[in-house]
Amino acid sequence: MDNKQISKAVIKRLPRYYRYLGELMQEGVERISSNELSEKMKVTASQIRQDLNNFGGFGQQGYGYNVSYLYNEIAKILGIDKQHNLIIIGAGNLGQAIANYANFERRGFMIKGMFDVNPRLIGMTVRGIEIYPIEQLESFIKENDVQIAALTIPKAKAEEMAEKLVSYGVKAIWNFAHTDLNLPKDVVVENVHLSESLMRLSYKVSNMDTGK
Amino acid sequence: MDNKQISKAVIKRLPRYYRYLGELMQEGVERISSNELSEKMKVTASQIRQDLNNFGGFGQQGYGYNVSYLYNEIAKILGIDKQHNLIIIGAGNLGQAIANYANFERRGFMIKGMFDVNPRLIGMTVRGIEIYPIEQLESFIKENDVQIAALTIPKAKAEEMAEKLVSYGVKAIWNFAHTDLNLPKDVVVENVHLSESLMRLSYKVSNMDTGK
Repeated sequence: MDNKQISKAVIKRLPRYYRYLGELMQEGVERISSNELSEKMKVTASQIRQDLNNFGGFGQQGYGYNVSYLYNEIAKILGIDKQHNLIIIGAGNLGQAIANYANFERRGFMIKGMFDVNPRLIGMTVRGIEIYPIEQLESFIKENDVQIAALTIPKAKAEEMAEKLVSYGVKAIWNFAHTDLNLPKDVVVENVHLSESLMRLSYKVSNMDTGK
Repeated sequence: MDNKQISKAVIKRLPRYYRYLGELMQEGVERISSNELSEKMKVTASQIRQDLNNFGGFGQQGYGYNVSYLYNEIAKILGIDKQHNLIIIGAGNLGQAIANYANFERRGFMIKGMFDVNPRLIGMTVRGIEIYPIEQLESFIKENDVQIAALTIPKAKAEEMAEKLVSYGVKAIWNFAHTDLNLPKDVVVENVHLSESLMRLSYKVSNMDTGK
């Protein structure tokens, strides 16, 4: 993999390639052409060739892509060939939904613990993952080499908590709170704003109706 | 609002404008210039002017935008000035997390019910929203004028369920299952693929590390 800047748009599409390649591997497919992949993924074949050329062109003319090779190369690019330690802040339904999703571990994301302020939740486990009191956050992050924190708490507390997490050594925030976080530039933030997603859906539905 | 095509990129940004304008209204702000909004939202002022010009230019030179007018106009464009009836398929943690989020109702999304195959969940309520057996799905959709279904079930069952929902009259699927749905073109699909979001975060973390 060379060092040239890969565009955000390509990076955004890579996880989807990764998902499809994983499914192909499960089906026992060893090679696939850009045309076949195009049909499966509903993306043009030229887009696929362009995207995958960014990484040094794993495809060979008339021969197609080696599925498992491409799968592993994309994993390396995405950094999911390494282990990342993750904690979840907020052990409500959303936090528990994330804890319950075993697939994250298969992709190298190890959920080390959950944290909550609600004393009734402390000591409970979700799929073997324990819920700790928020007072233990700092020592836990340092002892468990935690890099990523999923933030599933109300927006009023989100900014303050994110700043704390960063001061304790967390490098990346997976932010589910409905607010944008103002953090130092070297902290990674990935937002999942569900209400914005629902509004985009609403736009599409409304636009479809008026188009009739 | 004129009928010209609004680009996907602009639509994607509108919910964020809407969120910021709502916060400004809560703070009692009546007017805001593109420069002030630019600083708050960390988007260039020229981008803001360009985006908002799409809707006939609510801004006046040297005077700024009328916050509540812009807020309401964006609501109309997004279709959230009208009521949308929504159901949740899958009453696990993720489904319950969505049911618990009262803000959706303030934006016109009325959660009418949840559905699950697990008999132990039937009859329970989450924030007053009842969980019904999946057998009642068809009649419920028809009787409650349900337009939108949030799909929070495992991917193995997602496609089949989505097809059923569409055949019962649902117009839009808010898809949380980790798969792409192949549905007729006139059905709206908005995907929330959490594992893809986590992989993008992983890429950013990995890239940051190597950049040091």
